[in-house]
Amino acid sequence: MWRDLRTIGRNADTGGYRRYAWTSADADCRAWFQAQAEARGLACELDRNGNQWAWLGDPSAGDAVVTGSHLDSVPDGGAFDGPLGVVSSFAALDELRRRRVEFTRPVAVTNFGDEEGARFGLACVGSRLAAGQLTREKAYELKDADGISLPQAMEAAGYDPAAIGPDPERLARIGAFVELHVEQGRALDLSGDAVGIASAIWPHGRWRFDFAGEANHAGTTRLVDRRDPMLTYAETVLAARREAELAGALATFGKISVEPNGVNAVPSLVRGWLDSRAADQATLDTVVAAVEQAARERAERDGVHLAVVRESFTPVIEFEHALRDELNKILGGAVPVLGTGAGHDAGILSTSVPTAMLFVRNPTGVSHSPAESADEDDCVAGVMALADVLEGLACR
Amino acid sequence: MWRDLRTIGRNADTGGYRRYAWTSADADCRAWFQAQAEARGLACELDRNGNQWAWLGDPSAGDAVVTGSHLDSVPDGGAFDGPLGVVSSFAALDELRRRRVEFTRPVAVTNFGDEEGARFGLACVGSRLAAGQLTREKAYELKDADGISLPQAMEAAGYDPAAIGPDPERLARIGAFVELHVEQGRALDLSGDAVGIASAIWPHGRWRFDFAGEANHAGTTRLVDRRDPMLTYAETVLAARREAELAGALATFGKISVEPNGVNAVPSLVRGWLDSRAADQATLDTVVAAVEQAARERAERDGVHLAVVRESFTPVIEFEHALRDELNKILGGAVPVLGTGAGHDAGILSTSVPTAMLFVRNPTGVSHSPAESADEDDCVAGVMALADVLEGLACR
Repeated sequence: MWRDLRTIGRNADTGGYRRYAWTSADADCRAWFQAQAEARGLACELDRNGNQWAWLGDPSAGDAVVTGSHLDSVPDGGAFDGPLGVVSSFAALDELRRRRVEFTRPVAVTNFGDEEGARFGLACVGSRLAAGQLTREKAYELKDADGISLPQAMEAAGYDPAAIGPDPERLARIGAFVELHVEQGRALDLSGDAVGIASAIWPHGRWRFDFAGEANHAGTTRLVDRRDPMLTYAETVLAARREAELAGALATFGKISVEPNGVNAVPSLVRGWLDSRAADQATLDTVVAAVEQAARERAERDGVHLAVVRESFTPVIEFEHALRDELNKILGGAVPVLGTGAGHDAGILSTSVPTAMLFVRNPTGVSHSPAESADEDDCVAGVMALADVLEGLACR
Repeated sequence: MWRDLRTIGRNADTGGYRRYAWTSADADCRAWFQAQAEARGLACELDRNGNQWAWLGDPSAGDAVVTGSHLDSVPDGGAFDGPLGVVSSFAALDELRRRRVEFTRPVAVTNFGDEEGARFGLACVGSRLAAGQLTREKAYELKDADGISLPQAMEAAGYDPAAIGPDPERLARIGAFVELHVEQGRALDLSGDAVGIASAIWPHGRWRFDFAGEANHAGTTRLVDRRDPMLTYAETVLAARREAELAGALATFGKISVEPNGVNAVPSLVRGWLDSRAADQATLDTVVAAVEQAARERAERDGVHLAVVRESFTPVIEFEHALRDELNKILGGAVPVLGTGAGHDAGILSTSVPTAMLFVRNPTGVSHSPAESADEDDCVAGVMALADVLEGLACR
């Protein structure tokens, strides 16, 4: 199963995956999903938002137990973020067939579309649309770097974009959604566990810092006459690290845009994006305020104008305690419960459906990189845990 | 004369000029040059490297006095850098006609092609080729951001690239080259002079700093587990400013390239370009070594690998003292003599031909920006000084 998927959308130079929504790599992933479903006699279904569903039992019976994840990737992403959840879902069904269990509830495996948002800049588009957290109008306005809109991209891939929008009836059929995912940190590695259960997704957001200075000749302008926004940016990057360290939070400047971006030109404009997350809202607020304060102080010194725009924000998402406790009971009660800074389709669905997540140990914690990994034993442990959960929930 | 030139290649949004080599804006500038030459009865000539010459008198007579500059621009450049020298050259000839002087030497106005290097990344391509400082082979390898090569661009603009290369015979005809240019700093503003004479072009170079870390998820990777090259870059930017300040030199990080440049990704690679210049070689060496040292220390702390590549370097260029002293005498002896950090066609030609430069006061020092300016009175003073120089050199 892994082998067929492994080569799709892989860049030969970097070894990383480039599976962006509605591209040919995405189509290949979808064809792989359908083939896996059909090989198991599952009924394949495509919803109005381009999410794939593979059903065992009658979907209309309701109270279904659904598992799955996504197959798309960030630019040069790893093999596990997303696909491990889908592959493990099919493998768990295989395991349950081996156990000859009798299902009392319908079960489905899903592949949510465009989870990473690598192409259109917004994460979890498939689940957001279904859950009504992204309107059809806003989705129609999404454009990729080449100016191609989401509906144009869907149409080019052979899908009908006219129908996208909230899908409450489909979500109402779901009694529980469980997403298995490779851990994107080292908590399980540090605690020595193969599998964990998610407690919550940290509140997180993106802030754009626009540092406006004055374009000038780098070879002739005296230092004292400059208004160089790159200096303000640099100070802000270091402040973000310092404040996050102090607060036990995360803060990252990973994206930058510079005008005119010439070797011999003092920049007129530096745009930096701050990604920050923390275990609770108060801590996050403190970190972002402190970074902005440091940026403003330096901006004044540099003669630079600073504007800060919050581009996106997601409050803390607590997974349903009842389902979480049930998973813990099924898995023997000794499974660590941990928070995560990453967003997931499960986080989106949690507002509509009882939702839980399982994490599989990541020995290096590296994620969104070709170096992302998980040991085979841990992957098997993940499949077994997911099979136990599905059996416990769907066969009671 | 200014009015016709003013609208060519001007971007309506920024108010800056985008006159890149071998584009339609460049062709319009060249047509303007030819029209100005013809209106004055000057003989227009295009050399093998695409530089324009407008001759008064017989070029083959030798020992010519040549003046001029360039008409191309940096991205969103100002109106004066380059064009002021060409416009002043024509205006100085008009003034000399008014004075009814008799020329004893041939005189020419030039427009050197691709001085700024905005399109192909190398400055002073026209003069470098003529002076044999850029080989035909290297010039053929130059490519713009769209992958179009220099010869392809020349051909598309209707020029024959087959002939480009050293032009020693043409340069041998020149007895003196004088370039008038708007000052790109505030030395004349601070000294209270409208016009100055160049002493030397500071040694300068470009160094590429490659900071290699490890791509990772910005939302889940613990700070201590990161190898974030943006931190090392930020520290280096601040170190460059500090070291330049200490040494009385210039150091600028104006260009950056980041991979993968995603909001939620710790970068795997940050490339920053250092532009540094100083009045003498020893100072420049000290600054660059200190910046590299600071970068290496921080790189070790961040777990980042650093490679530094010197991409280009130009040693100090001292303009010929005899010609400089002659200009000073012609202009009454009270003209300030100043160094500059900027490269110019005059700097390239100075290795082949006795060369001098005149600077016109820039009240803000701003350059390579739409805000670049010069007062009308100072421009007139520049024209008069250039006319005096041409009269003094070509009518003796």
